[in-house]
Amino acid sequence: MLKFAYKLIIAYDGTHYSGWQVQPNGISIQETLQNVMKTILPFAPQVTGSGRTDAGVHALGQVAHFHSPTEIDLHRFQHSLNALLPPDIRILQIEPVSLDFHARYSAVKKTYHYHLWLDRVQNPFQRAYSLHVRHRVDLSLLREAAAQLVGEHDFTSFANSATEGSAAHDAVRTLFRADVLEQEGGVRIELEANGFLYKMVRNIVGTLLEVAAGKRDVSNIAHLLQARDRRLAGTAVEPKGLFLAQVDY
Amino acid sequence: MLKFAYKLIIAYDGTHYSGWQVQPNGISIQETLQNVMKTILPFAPQVTGSGRTDAGVHALGQVAHFHSPTEIDLHRFQHSLNALLPPDIRILQIEPVSLDFHARYSAVKKTYHYHLWLDRVQNPFQRAYSLHVRHRVDLSLLREAAAQLVGEHDFTSFANSATEGSAAHDAVRTLFRADVLEQEGGVRIELEANGFLYKMVRNIVGTLLEVAAGKRDVSNIAHLLQARDRRLAGTAVEPKGLFLAQVDY
Repeated sequence: MLKFAYKLIIAYDGTHYSGWQVQPNGISIQETLQNVMKTILPFAPQVTGSGRTDAGVHALGQVAHFHSPTEIDLHRFQHSLNALLPPDIRILQIEPVSLDFHARYSAVKKTYHYHLWLDRVQNPFQRAYSLHVRHRVDLSLLREAAAQLVGEHDFTSFANSATEGSAAHDAVRTLFRADVLEQEGGVRIELEANGFLYKMVRNIVGTLLEVAAGKRDVSNIAHLLQARDRRLAGTAVEPKGLFLAQVDY
Repeated sequence: MLKFAYKLIIAYDGTHYSGWQVQPNGISIQETLQNVMKTILPFAPQVTGSGRTDAGVHALGQVAHFHSPTEIDLHRFQHSLNALLPPDIRILQIEPVSLDFHARYSAVKKTYHYHLWLDRVQNPFQRAYSLHVRHRVDLSLLREAAAQLVGEHDFTSFANSATEGSAAHDAVRTLFRADVLEQEGGVRIELEANGFLYKMVRNIVGTLLEVAAGKRDVSNIAHLLQARDRRLAGTAVEPKGLFLAQVDY
């Protein structure tokens, strides 16, 4: 009987992982976490994340849950987890939740950040955490294009199929916020929505960069939303600039 | 005839290097830089740094100089260097200097930063750039002890011999500033002096941490300065929290 449920908030540097989800090739965050947990707990827990992050994508606040037949001393458990996990994965918080809490299905809002380095010379300490953009980036155009995406839309044009051939059944999502905030060396694009489709943030950022470079007109964004055709939008940007920042319930 | 002299300002993530200086074992920053420079320039330059940084120590603003028989187009040269160097070494600036400029001997002031992570859970993105201190750190004691070091002193107690058996001839240095500044997750100790002895910053920080933990009395600092005996001070802290921040001329 699995009578207790716990919610984890996890930060990780995704550089050396094949992503959140257990994969046949490469080491995933989920797998690393489950392997450490089963050495501490008297059973092998199944950890469910709020959603997958791709290889190389980082998290400031990924959320996951697991069930346990016995109550766990959370202070000690968190300490043991962080002592045994590699230092690029940290458990920021653990708390008890009700048994019907589901890291993926209970989520009401997710926030992603994408870091763009715009200055001529990239800070070497940011090389794995920001995309160095060497072409022209017009910040007004970037902001104007981002604003066009806010609201309830069918985001099919910005979604890759998770598995070849299978499209998302329902690609309608509500983007609450698409902000372009200045930070050291460039900008951070913050996207907040009730859900994201596969590779949606990276496809959006790639498309916004084409607008900011003057290669695509701002008015094209509305057209892309209408068209529902992945082939029309821009190329996905690299995973290294992407952070799953927060999941709200 | 080497008629032109140039000053470089260099930032690097020292994690994967054996230090600044060319070493028989491991790859150094100096060597990496010289190897790239000789593929761009029609000669093999000798690059002289402001001083060595140890294996794993980082730099926000290391300074170096080199001489050239011909004038160099600096804008293009910087671009080529950054295109060919690994992304953990970046040339922030290059400028012409007079032939008598010497990165080491002309320096009048150096600033080092040491990052201490004091919160219970270390940010995984700071794991290679801050020391996670798990014992008690009393910030008032840390500041009080740091202040005792400011001024002109013989720092022999805080210096390792660069090569076994050879002590520094003159260990008198003037520490202009020893500040403890709060930052995300902990503090940054900033030390500014007219020069630093070998491992001086790491030995100082190790000793300050003993005071902050209550293991060594603040009054012991004055005693250490008087004693001029390396065996009496604390253990050097790890290189990963240390940054050569700035060199002034």
